Amino acid sequence: MILTDMCIIGAGPVGLFAVFEAGLLKMRCHLMDVLPQVGGQLSEIYPHKPIYDIPGYPSILAQELIDRQMEQIAPFAPTFSLAERVEELCKQDDGSYFVIGSEGTVVHCQVVVIAGGLGCFEPRKPELLNLDRFEKTNVHYMVKDPERFRDKRIVIAGGGDSALDWTVYLADIAKKTTLVHRSDSFRGAPDSAEKVHQLAQQGKIDLLLSHTLVALEGDRTLTGIQVANKQKESTVLQTDEFIPLYGLSPKLGSIADWGLQIDKNAIEVNTFDYSSNVERIYAIGDINSYPGKLKLILCGYHEAALMCQSAFKYVYPEQKLSFKYTTVNGINAF
Amino acid sequence: MILTDMCIIGAGPVGLFAVFEAGLLKMRCHLMDVLPQVGGQLSEIYPHKPIYDIPGYPSILAQELIDRQMEQIAPFAPTFSLAERVEELCKQDDGSYFVIGSEGTVVHCQVVVIAGGLGCFEPRKPELLNLDRFEKTNVHYMVKDPERFRDKRIVIAGGGDSALDWTVYLADIAKKTTLVHRSDSFRGAPDSAEKVHQLAQQGKIDLLLSHTLVALEGDRTLTGIQVANKQKESTVLQTDEFIPLYGLSPKLGSIADWGLQIDKNAIEVNTFDYSSNVERIYAIGDINSYPGKLKLILCGYHEAALMCQSAFKYVYPEQKLSFKYTTVNGINAF
Repeated sequence: MILTDMCIIGAGPVGLFAVFEAGLLKMRCHLMDVLPQVGGQLSEIYPHKPIYDIPGYPSILAQELIDRQMEQIAPFAPTFSLAERVEELCKQDDGSYFVIGSEGTVVHCQVVVIAGGLGCFEPRKPELLNLDRFEKTNVHYMVKDPERFRDKRIVIAGGGDSALDWTVYLADIAKKTTLVHRSDSFRGAPDSAEKVHQLAQQGKIDLLLSHTLVALEGDRTLTGIQVANKQKESTVLQTDEFIPLYGLSPKLGSIADWGLQIDKNAIEVNTFDYSSNVERIYAIGDINSYPGKLKLILCGYHEAALMCQSAFKYVYPEQKLSFKYTTVNGINAF
Repeated sequence: MILTDMCIIGAGPVGLFAVFEAGLLKMRCHLMDVLPQVGGQLSEIYPHKPIYDIPGYPSILAQELIDRQMEQIAPFAPTFSLAERVEELCKQDDGSYFVIGSEGTVVHCQVVVIAGGLGCFEPRKPELLNLDRFEKTNVHYMVKDPERFRDKRIVIAGGGDSALDWTVYLADIAKKTTLVHRSDSFRGAPDSAEKVHQLAQQGKIDLLLSHTLVALEGDRTLTGIQVANKQKESTVLQTDEFIPLYGLSPKLGSIADWGLQIDKNAIEVNTFDYSSNVERIYAIGDINSYPGKLKLILCGYHEAALMCQSAFKYVYPEQKLSFKYTTVNGINAF
């Protein structure tokens, strides 16, 4: 059994920074993540992509940010259970928790911090014949690397911001871009919708409104997508790649059973300390929701800092917390 | 007259980052700061001190952080009025503002962002004979560089966290450290108070409780401080330097007349968008106050990001804001 102060579920940038803020307050952390390495989306999906909105970094590669953060928390010696999913949470009489992982790890902690980010979600899939046949090859529920689509024929489906933004972005990269949407109006931002209409008028993309998807075609590789208009007349769009962008739905696993208030695919928290409705359970980063929420890494950093100030009372119930600046005290590791 | 979207009062790290977040939303910024250079406290007070709690930087010198942030906002070409104090704010019929500076600069903007930080405060000064005589030499209302006091005899005065923390910290550096406090108990954190008592018991510092300050002594340089106990018996403490740490009081200048809700030396804001009670006026960074507030640079960054999302509606009232990631779109400057 692992004894720690704080069990952090999710070892992405926000979970990692929580270790730092906890460490300043002499709280130890254990992190559990279903991925085999730390870094969350940044290391898994876009390690070599530059990020431009980390304060103080005009540009930094995603993996480099994670590496720097690992260096930053090294003095606090966090422990990790990677490639392990959280299976169960058991509240003890004294208020503390046992967190039990899929590989048999048992963590005894005073506070549970959910920092699962996008890892707690899965894409909404269209109901479509033969979809599963190409899921590992030519169907993409998210655009990990736009270069993947250079000089390819692509079909994007959806009517929200993701579908609109990627249509605009990939129109320059792909050989042929088609956007299919079941309705005749878009849910996404009006200016993005307007850009899409302009691209269609300029002949730079094909736009199929009021069309539904019927089936994927092809044997080993995708060759086309059968779509139908409102009169049920069907056409086949020749394509190499299919990008359905219908948003995400929560895949919280056992977390869904913990009695947490879930709203719009996220855990509701307050902005005082980013605590959930369940005592001693906090949610920080992209997994949480509150008025004004922005899904930015830098916001998760702030949430981690405030969360730790609040969590302190469960770890050190006898002590009054005194706030200190690192410029004065430096880093005092354990 | 300078025409801009957002006038930011204060060019410290948080004000500078607001330029970046505004820039992503195509909002232009003009910054006004009473200091002759950008960077706020970081450049003015401790440019060569390392900061350890900027996410992704295990350690960075204060001035280096400011330099990197200037590089980060360069694409958005902010304009500056440095060495200029804000004198007046005039609301226009259309909701926009004129911000008028002490050097005659007039800025016409849609939104005013107060990011004045500690620059909007001044130290509380003790009532003490001859204080002004040594204010430029041996009296220090804040510890800018601890090394300044190496092998010196110092007297610290106060009973809050600053006084306690600096007593503990400087006890190792100074030749002789004396802490004078008018009461017999401390307001600061109990564990800091206990450390101070321990240091006194170990003979590492002199602790004078229930003593008041009477006068500074010395001709050109400080030689001693006259203090008195409750029985009005006075003693002179021989010392080289005097560090009165009685906290800060607001020195908001004209800002105090703008009808803003001020609580405990800070401007009250909500955590949805860090707006004040006055429409189109926001406050971010150390100058604001809300439940859970931590005076950390990283929190100011978060506040700047949320503030910009809200300010957008005043700058582009016709447009719906669509949130974009820099990893996808990069930085599109004006």
